[in-house]
Amino acid sequence: MSKTNPGNFFEDFTVGQVIRHATPRTVTEGDRAVYGSLYPTRFAVPSSAEFAASVGLDPHPVEELIAFHIAFGKTVPDVSLNAVANLGYAECRFHQPVVPGDTLSTTSEVIGLKQNSNGRSGVVYVRSTATNQRGEVALDWARWVMVHKRDVDAPAPEPVVPDLAPAVAAEDLLIPAGLDFSSYDETAAGEPHRWSDYEIGERIDHVDGVTLTDSEHQQATRLWQNTAKVHFNVEARPDGNRLVYGGHVISLARALSYNGLANAQLIAAINAGAHTAPAFGGDTVYAWSEVLDKAETPAPGVGALRLRLVATKGRDESMTLKDPETGKYAAGVLLDLDYWALVPR
Amino acid sequence: MSKTNPGNFFEDFTVGQVIRHATPRTVTEGDRAVYGSLYPTRFAVPSSAEFAASVGLDPHPVEELIAFHIAFGKTVPDVSLNAVANLGYAECRFHQPVVPGDTLSTTSEVIGLKQNSNGRSGVVYVRSTATNQRGEVALDWARWVMVHKRDVDAPAPEPVVPDLAPAVAAEDLLIPAGLDFSSYDETAAGEPHRWSDYEIGERIDHVDGVTLTDSEHQQATRLWQNTAKVHFNVEARPDGNRLVYGGHVISLARALSYNGLANAQLIAAINAGAHTAPAFGGDTVYAWSEVLDKAETPAPGVGALRLRLVATKGRDESMTLKDPETGKYAAGVLLDLDYWALVPR
Amino acid sequence: MSKTNPGNFFEDFTVGQVIRHATPRTVTEGDRAVYGSLYPTRFAVPSSAEFAASVGLDPHPVEELIAFHIAFGKTVPDVSLNAVANLGYAECRFHQPVVPGDTLSTTSEVIGLKQNSNGRSGVVYVRSTATNQRGEVALDWARWVMVHKRDVDAPAPEPVVPDLAPAVAAEDLLIPAGLDFSSYDETAAGEPHRWSDYEIGERIDHVDGVTLTDSEHQQATRLWQNTAKVHFNVEARPDGNRLVYGGHVISLARALSYNGLANAQLIAAINAGAHTAPAFGGDTVYAWSEVLDKAETPAPGVGALRLRLVATKGRDESMTLKDPETGKYAAGVLLDLDYWALVPR
Repeated sequence: MSKTNPGNFFEDFTVGQVIRHATPRTVTEGDRAVYGSLYPTRFAVPSSAEFAASVGLDPHPVEELIAFHIAFGKTVPDVSLNAVANLGYAECRFHQPVVPGDTLSTTSEVIGLKQNSNGRSGVVYVRSTATNQRGEVALDWARWVMVHKRDVDAPAPEPVVPDLAPAVAAEDLLIPAGLDFSSYDETAAGEPHRWSDYEIGERIDHVDGVTLTDSEHQQATRLWQNTAKVHFNVEARPDGNRLVYGGHVISLARALSYNGLANAQLIAAINAGAHTAPAFGGDTVYAWSEVLDKAETPAPGVGALRLRLVATKGRDESMTLKDPETGKYAAGVLLDLDYWALVPR
Repeated sequence: MSKTNPGNFFEDFTVGQVIRHATPRTVTEGDRAVYGSLYPTRFAVPSSAEFAASVGLDPHPVEELIAFHIAFGKTVPDVSLNAVANLGYAECRFHQPVVPGDTLSTTSEVIGLKQNSNGRSGVVYVRSTATNQRGEVALDWARWVMVHKRDVDAPAPEPVVPDLAPAVAAEDLLIPAGLDFSSYDETAAGEPHRWSDYEIGERIDHVDGVTLTDSEHQQATRLWQNTAKVHFNVEARPDGNRLVYGGHVISLARALSYNGLANAQLIAAINAGAHTAPAFGGDTVYAWSEVLDKAETPAPGVGALRLRLVATKGRDESMTLKDPETGKYAAGVLLDLDYWALVPR
Repeated sequence: MSKTNPGNFFEDFTVGQVIRHATPRTVTEGDRAVYGSLYPTRFAVPSSAEFAASVGLDPHPVEELIAFHIAFGKTVPDVSLNAVANLGYAECRFHQPVVPGDTLSTTSEVIGLKQNSNGRSGVVYVRSTATNQRGEVALDWARWVMVHKRDVDAPAPEPVVPDLAPAVAAEDLLIPAGLDFSSYDETAAGEPHRWSDYEIGERIDHVDGVTLTDSEHQQATRLWQNTAKVHFNVEARPDGNRLVYGGHVISLARALSYNGLANAQLIAAINAGAHTAPAFGGDTVYAWSEVLDKAETPAPGVGALRLRLVATKGRDESMTLKDPETGKYAAGVLLDLDYWALVPR
């Protein structure tokens, strides 16, 4: 019998099933450096141990997206190896900073199942939780993904669609213990714009673009031990292209957003996310943001901005999210991400 | 007089000669991260400090192949800068885990010489030993390589061909101090297959493929301070291709073998190895393994599997090593490596 | 109003102006590893913590160019985002070794301004100083760069051209505290040539070449948080090429110079530097050096060599710096760098 992992198919999942994913992974300063070589990140907290300590974060946290990609990567072999499409994220909260030396493990619970009307695939909803070596939650999130059936004649399960919040409520945001922006050094951080300078509805064109290379997206995706074949193997897709991991576009757009949102230091939650078009090596990616909401937090000097982060193939200075005629995502939109950032007030 | 290193030619070697190679190199957590960005490795021991400690390995070892490539790279400027071909490896044993902070130095002794009948080159046999900062052996191995003569008229040395074992005997394997697989967590490791689940003669198709890029193999090879020109310079070969370092294919195949051999956690020895065809950027590499032998070890819960690891250009589901008609390696075979892995019983 | 950084234009600078640059950056062992994957560096001091300690340097310093690129990268968003050309460096001194854990911040003072006769741009002279988390100077340097005017009708400032030394005087070199080459291990270092073996006027062809890839130069440049668009975005230049960051060529040439200058362990100062032609992915870069001067130092066993380091596109075995007819840089010359290295006597 084959010893290799065929991945799970739609009919292998049952609501309530708990999957403990391989492989635990220790985060290191090496991850921070490789991340910095792959994304143009300049946020002062992950860049500088001194700056982080000056806002109450010591030891020196890595970017939340490093923790997210590592934790997410672990779910791929069990959840999405046979996926048709990654449909969405919700209710992702970062419970505490991840620091070098932390070891992350991920567990998922199946929280919903719905077979598609074509009978060939179905949507699997999971809630995944990444814990550190002390058994504490580092982050958790819900995700739903369309997965092939192995056998189209397998019976459809009772449909269960979980009730997921459209966004994490501001009062449910988890603020890192000790975070204090009351003596925040905006010159060191790179921009003067604080929480009060941003208005709901405001859009920010992040201006800069980065041309993707296959080597770089492969290296990034591999660093997270993500095993989806389409990212690494030109023989895996009929067009011979290596599909860029959606998380690569998230990290790239987040890094580009520094230019205009340099003080959006920490990601507290990801409310929703859609990968609206594929990206490939050679594409030039730009980003823009929209302020969706604002909230105060109990932490000293810390406000929260709810931001839409949009990545586009080619720059769209008009910052158009959806085609007004069709209501669909505008041509060139690659990513529509909705998240909460922590910003000095 | 030129101050640059021309490398040694065949007539520069004498049996019994000892070469202390430059440059000592300190292993760091950065090496682990870069390695993880270049190879799809997921073995739990090198991935997780917690998992490693749970099997008795603390501090957290890096992959044996990191140590191998670093130790090997040091020999290139002295042994194989003028090589025609790397012919084989034998008797490679890992004496103890290498951990971040260790500094490796390599020394080689010439153990054999045999001029080729054409008079233009000869085979040099060396035994190389890498030691750490405490002077303890980290690994050692024998290697033979065909090297150009500088002067075809230089007299041939008395031929000496060392007697190298076809494989390290199971009883000569060195088990890391403290290694204990008796409470091994196979869910965290990623697969349920233990030592007793593998049968001699069994073949495992590792299924996944990775398309090589020039950037990635250059970065890997450079990380090991390997200076062979053909890997980095399009002007070094008539075809304008950058030859992929054979060790890159070894590391890639080893990482791909996780899928089916996730519990082959540690490499105890390399018995033999042949780079049977060149690889280049754009090639898509797959791997399969064959169980050659099995042995018990005195360490608690630890068994040994002797494995053949074959890398191929393009996937060969038939897992054919040699063409039955010619007896030569089948088209597409890039690597034939024979090693001992330590596996939970 | 736009929140993104438009960069400064020529008329935004005034003599005496002090700019504290974002973002402080902590150096880690990860940087050393990524650097080692991008450049073929083999100098024993940055390669080996043991070797470094044996010459009095403990903790283990990273390459001076890591510190230089990080410190330099910080100045780009404020000084050279609207640059036409980077014209030169002078008076760069490394005040103390930078070690993992150090956090670097950079401040620049405008020390000169001179509008070009065409009225469209001008030359900005800055002296930049990078300090560590203890407020001590790690390195400083002067640089001048041609910057666009925003408004061609803006009045020209009073021209101020600073008096910069053609080279750092030998007696002004700063030797790392504790540096002692009196029991230097030249076998470990890789070459026997010491300070006394080099003669003024001597040229060394470093022989080896490296073919550039876009992925690699992007990764390097990003690691330094350098944001100049031309390095990352094929849409930023009419020719669709990504311009290689000049510092990438410096690091590559320095690494290649190991072959013939393996004992030029530390960079004490950069006297001058010119990027004489652009480099792009696909170019194959070689290097040669010329000994410009020699000096003793008060540190035990430590001499200083003043070296010209020239990078070329394609190998030039004739090592021709300038075309004898035109007096201009010879075709293929990419870099002309003048620096002081510390070498065992």
